[in-house]
Amino acid sequence: MGDAPKVAILMGSDTDLQVMEEAVEALEKFHVPFEMRVLSAHRSAEALEKFAREAESKGVQVLIAAAGGAAHLAGVLASHTALPVIGVPMPSDRMGGMDSLLSTVQMPAGVPVACMGLGKSGATNAAVMAVEVLATADPHMRKALREYKKELSEQVKAQDGSVQRWLKDRTTQ
Amino acid sequence: MGDAPKVAILMGSDTDLQVMEEAVEALEKFHVPFEMRVLSAHRSAEALEKFAREAESKGVQVLIAAAGGAAHLAGVLASHTALPVIGVPMPSDRMGGMDSLLSTVQMPAGVPVACMGLGKSGATNAAVMAVEVLATADPHMRKALREYKKELSEQVKAQDGSVQRWLKDRTTQ
Amino acid sequence: MGDAPKVAILMGSDTDLQVMEEAVEALEKFHVPFEMRVLSAHRSAEALEKFAREAESKGVQVLIAAAGGAAHLAGVLASHTALPVIGVPMPSDRMGGMDSLLSTVQMPAGVPVACMGLGKSGATNAAVMAVEVLATADPHMRKALREYKKELSEQVKAQDGSVQRWLKDRTTQ
Amino acid sequence: MGDAPKVAILMGSDTDLQVMEEAVEALEKFHVPFEMRVLSAHRSAEALEKFAREAESKGVQVLIAAAGGAAHLAGVLASHTALPVIGVPMPSDRMGGMDSLLSTVQMPAGVPVACMGLGKSGATNAAVMAVEVLATADPHMRKALREYKKELSEQVKAQDGSVQRWLKDRTTQ
Amino acid sequence: MGDAPKVAILMGSDTDLQVMEEAVEALEKFHVPFEMRVLSAHRSAEALEKFAREAESKGVQVLIAAAGGAAHLAGVLASHTALPVIGVPMPSDRMGGMDSLLSTVQMPAGVPVACMGLGKSGATNAAVMAVEVLATADPHMRKALREYKKELSEQVKAQDGSVQRWLKDRTTQ
Amino acid sequence: MGDAPKVAILMGSDTDLQVMEEAVEALEKFHVPFEMRVLSAHRSAEALEKFAREAESKGVQVLIAAAGGAAHLAGVLASHTALPVIGVPMPSDRMGGMDSLLSTVQMPAGVPVACMGLGKSGATNAAVMAVEVLATADPHMRKALREYKKELSEQVKAQDGSVQRWLKDRTTQ
Amino acid sequence: MGDAPKVAILMGSDTDLQVMEEAVEALEKFHVPFEMRVLSAHRSAEALEKFAREAESKGVQVLIAAAGGAAHLAGVLASHTALPVIGVPMPSDRMGGMDSLLSTVQMPAGVPVACMGLGKSGATNAAVMAVEVLATADPHMRKALREYKKELSEQVKAQDGSVQRWLKDRTTQ
Amino acid sequence: MGDAPKVAILMGSDTDLQVMEEAVEALEKFHVPFEMRVLSAHRSAEALEKFAREAESKGVQVLIAAAGGAAHLAGVLASHTALPVIGVPMPSDRMGGMDSLLSTVQMPAGVPVACMGLGKSGATNAAVMAVEVLATADPHMRKALREYKKELSEQVKAQDGSVQRWLKDRTTQ
Repeated sequence: MGDAPKVAILMGSDTDLQVMEEAVEALEKFHVPFEMRVLSAHRSAEALEKFAREAESKGVQVLIAAAGGAAHLAGVLASHTALPVIGVPMPSDRMGGMDSLLSTVQMPAGVPVACMGLGKSGATNAAVMAVEVLATADPHMRKALREYKKELSEQVKAQDGSVQRWLKDRTTQ
Repeated sequence: MGDAPKVAILMGSDTDLQVMEEAVEALEKFHVPFEMRVLSAHRSAEALEKFAREAESKGVQVLIAAAGGAAHLAGVLASHTALPVIGVPMPSDRMGGMDSLLSTVQMPAGVPVACMGLGKSGATNAAVMAVEVLATADPHMRKALREYKKELSEQVKAQDGSVQRWLKDRTTQ
Repeated sequence: MGDAPKVAILMGSDTDLQVMEEAVEALEKFHVPFEMRVLSAHRSAEALEKFAREAESKGVQVLIAAAGGAAHLAGVLASHTALPVIGVPMPSDRMGGMDSLLSTVQMPAGVPVACMGLGKSGATNAAVMAVEVLATADPHMRKALREYKKELSEQVKAQDGSVQRWLKDRTTQ
Repeated sequence: MGDAPKVAILMGSDTDLQVMEEAVEALEKFHVPFEMRVLSAHRSAEALEKFAREAESKGVQVLIAAAGGAAHLAGVLASHTALPVIGVPMPSDRMGGMDSLLSTVQMPAGVPVACMGLGKSGATNAAVMAVEVLATADPHMRKALREYKKELSEQVKAQDGSVQRWLKDRTTQ
Repeated sequence: MGDAPKVAILMGSDTDLQVMEEAVEALEKFHVPFEMRVLSAHRSAEALEKFAREAESKGVQVLIAAAGGAAHLAGVLASHTALPVIGVPMPSDRMGGMDSLLSTVQMPAGVPVACMGLGKSGATNAAVMAVEVLATADPHMRKALREYKKELSEQVKAQDGSVQRWLKDRTTQ
Repeated sequence: MGDAPKVAILMGSDTDLQVMEEAVEALEKFHVPFEMRVLSAHRSAEALEKFAREAESKGVQVLIAAAGGAAHLAGVLASHTALPVIGVPMPSDRMGGMDSLLSTVQMPAGVPVACMGLGKSGATNAAVMAVEVLATADPHMRKALREYKKELSEQVKAQDGSVQRWLKDRTTQ
Repeated sequence: MGDAPKVAILMGSDTDLQVMEEAVEALEKFHVPFEMRVLSAHRSAEALEKFAREAESKGVQVLIAAAGGAAHLAGVLASHTALPVIGVPMPSDRMGGMDSLLSTVQMPAGVPVACMGLGKSGATNAAVMAVEVLATADPHMRKALREYKKELSEQVKAQDGSVQRWLKDRTTQ
Repeated sequence: MGDAPKVAILMGSDTDLQVMEEAVEALEKFHVPFEMRVLSAHRSAEALEKFAREAESKGVQVLIAAAGGAAHLAGVLASHTALPVIGVPMPSDRMGGMDSLLSTVQMPAGVPVACMGLGKSGATNAAVMAVEVLATADPHMRKALREYKKELSEQVKAQDGSVQRWLKDRTTQ
């Protein structure tokens, strides 16, 4: 992370860290320099706005915002910048996260948020989507993504192998 | 409306006017001076923030915010002011307004929004709730509210009368 | 609590206490005298009505009502008084509390309930909203609210600090 | 309806009449004397309570309550009487009536409401259920219900006949 | 239970017993003779139909049916008898029981099911509703119900007492 | 339809015909002899049971059942036969058909219903699925299905052509 | 499993195995030769397509596909083959599996998926439905299904027995 | 559109055109060369796969996929390419589009889809998000986006003006 960050991950609360650690791991895997901040749309609105205004000039290319409940963080970020904003709805204690999802995805025309799925899968995918965006201007990233896709396919093959063993064990018992 | 406004109604879009006209009528009924603005959490964030900062010093006591979809207007207002914020979720084309409702009501601890029901009933109620808040410091308002409650009860009685006539007509046919 | 209560917290059942304790703490923080009662819209209707009629004359300014399932407590209170009623939908065992939320928020025109979010955040926010209402007639309260907002912002900053340390530890491992 | 009413139909608003007319028709079909009233849990709470207290002494045996949105009418009735209360959730403009349904059905232990389906089918069924209850003490009613069930079965047979004709027409074209 | 049963409780599976035990307790409290059977709409259709046809001649006055998922038990019972059928939707592992609730309550016109709330509260209420129905022909039951309502009110008062003690302890700490 | 029917389409009401006409058209396209009946799980239970028992001996191989609301038709059929039962949930006036869908799909272990999507697409697909089942024992059917899949692909290509023309017209304007 | 497989079970991930083991057990019970594979619509699209193309020529008659979240596995399979595809929506961590269910069942006209209920019941039912399909061309299977239905009925009877004992114990205590 | 397309819009059906015309207009406004195709994940799987494989080599940088119901188009695209895929869930006739939304957004870890809101706002936003992605490598695009944001803000100001006139007219009447 010595390099200037290309991606910034924002969270509405530090309790979101256990979910967003997945995004950290995925960005590290692709060697993407990033920064990570706790900033709240509702409790630290000024700091958030300041961050949004300065992000672009620091060289940040993609913003990832994680929030739950009435999840306004991604939308408020998107109101302050022309950078692509990726939203990760946090699973909320109640309603299975439907509140987080709808608050993130249903943005008005002109101010898009790229919404991911709920929780850890969404956190990983926010990082992968960020890499896909960076790859627009970086052929090395594109190549790394192709490798990653192959790895995913290999993982499925490995899982299939373990199921075949499970079946064989079952039959021979 | 010559007096300094005590209530401000904010809408995310002028299409919300057909719903929020109900709030205007209710405030007029109680002779509460108000102002009404179109300001978007996502498309005019700076103007909204400026409005929120100045509202209190102008003498505004209660804010009403109407928005639909990923309805962030009430929440963003609440992040900029210590005045009570009443949210009116707009019926959205899709999902029956569930997105507007959850985006408005599920606020994080410390930053409340007083959420009303969806649509026109919610708009009327936002105004009545604003009057109930103002009545905390204004016994005339409290008295006007009691009159209003009696009127509601009279309306029900009138409706009952018309149903009794409908029944009688039906029986004598 | 030696002073005459300005806020009354009502609960439909004593099992709601573990959630509503948050409201108690928030009111204590703002030094607001309050009372707290278990009264059921369905099982002690007469006692509830009596309470509602007398609340105003005792000097109560704001009512907070917590209930779950077919949550009628806030609505029934609102039918008996012109004081502002704040509703806190309890998380129910089933349906993630959607039943409590909709029963509380979807009030008919003329009889508003100021609905908070589900559960503990909603309980805290009911108290903060009550303070915001009282602040209409009490500049000290308004000032205390501004302090509170600063505290919230400091808490976010502290959370951000702990995330920065987490990141640094991770990098240096 | 010259006889003392055995069933009372209550509605929260006269707009519910177009739905509840189905209940009227079904009660008339079974020659059950009934009365019908507009009474609101929120806007005419005192009149409602008075009605509930007097219903039993007038000889009413079953109460039917129709309401929409935060539909508290059936539940509030049930809090004031030991007569069986049948609830009919009104389709609301928004959310497909889910608010009306959950507010009616999710009653706390000890205070049951017999919830019917949404809208006109629910209105018819409230009347039929009322007749089924009255039949507990009235063998003629029981017999009439058996006739009614046969009629329903005949109606299905007639519908089947018209579908057979539709098929034949289609084939011979 | 030596007397001929007046109420029959049917369950789709013996796993529903832990919920329906609440109904058993409530019926015993009111000294109502009952029987209880496991019969499935889908897995023992013939036995169910036989039971439904014979119930009335045995003197059963009210049927209670508990089922989950695609909960057809109450509806299928209602198709075979003119006795009042009370449905208790079981909480299902998934969807918070919404499937059980909608399958039970949304019956077609002419074939009512009196739907209770989900789970244990619903089980208790099914029994209380059954007693309310029996009370139509039995003044002793009506009186017992009034006693029961008073008890409920006493329980709320006791809960209120414990909350007052909790508050006092808190203040004096 | 001179041949013995291989598929039977059942509907809970003749109003379902406008949806199920799609199934008729699809079966005719594949030259599958079928019969079509209106039979209600709730209003003509005995006739339904008789039909279910006789279907197999008449040579029917697949049953299609269309119903709405508390949609028990497919499940009740499945309780009476070992033939594959395909369920088509009807769009209901309220709740967007969620009640029909959940009542059809959430069957208990051991008694499957093959649930299709809501409405007309589901009706078409019920017929196509029936043909896929018949194709297990009939290679001509399998071949016809492959032709059908090609047609679908051709339709998409034709739609693509019309969009290309729309784009060209737009550009040259 | 020495015989050529007649049924293939596909899973999007090996974590689905704990649910799909129910399908394995049911197929074994009916002595149906099957194969089981982990193949992902999104992570191993090419392998999945290859599998789909070859399944029919290997003699597979029915495909079962289990997936969760944006559950595309069954639908993608159905796009590549004319064999009947049975979909089993996996319970997802969030939303109670509603995402899995809707992604599986709401297929466009012409490309059916036979959707089962969520989770383990759905897994069992997928296997039973597969047997019902195979029975179209195999009278032994049909007979085995009838035996199976009797067993289900016996299980219910046994459950009823244990409830009768529970009741007797309770009474005699 | 003479230039090589940088964005490709895919639709599952030509009926989606009335919604996706919004995306066309937005891309034209930013002078982004694009192509638009009807390709179905379920009905033309091979053509879709071929398109996905060739898109990158043709110079396409961003894919937009619009589909409804069991909306697999975006997810299937994402399985075949490392380009960023933006999904637009189509409002479906039933369920308010909840099926389209969940099928699009709930992707498994490793295969992200950037989900927009439902319908026309989502279509506009898909185009704006595509421009935001292209702007990563194109400072002119970034500048154009800043202009666009100002326009949005001007539109809100204009709407505010019309509301002020409406208020003035109302007052002076």
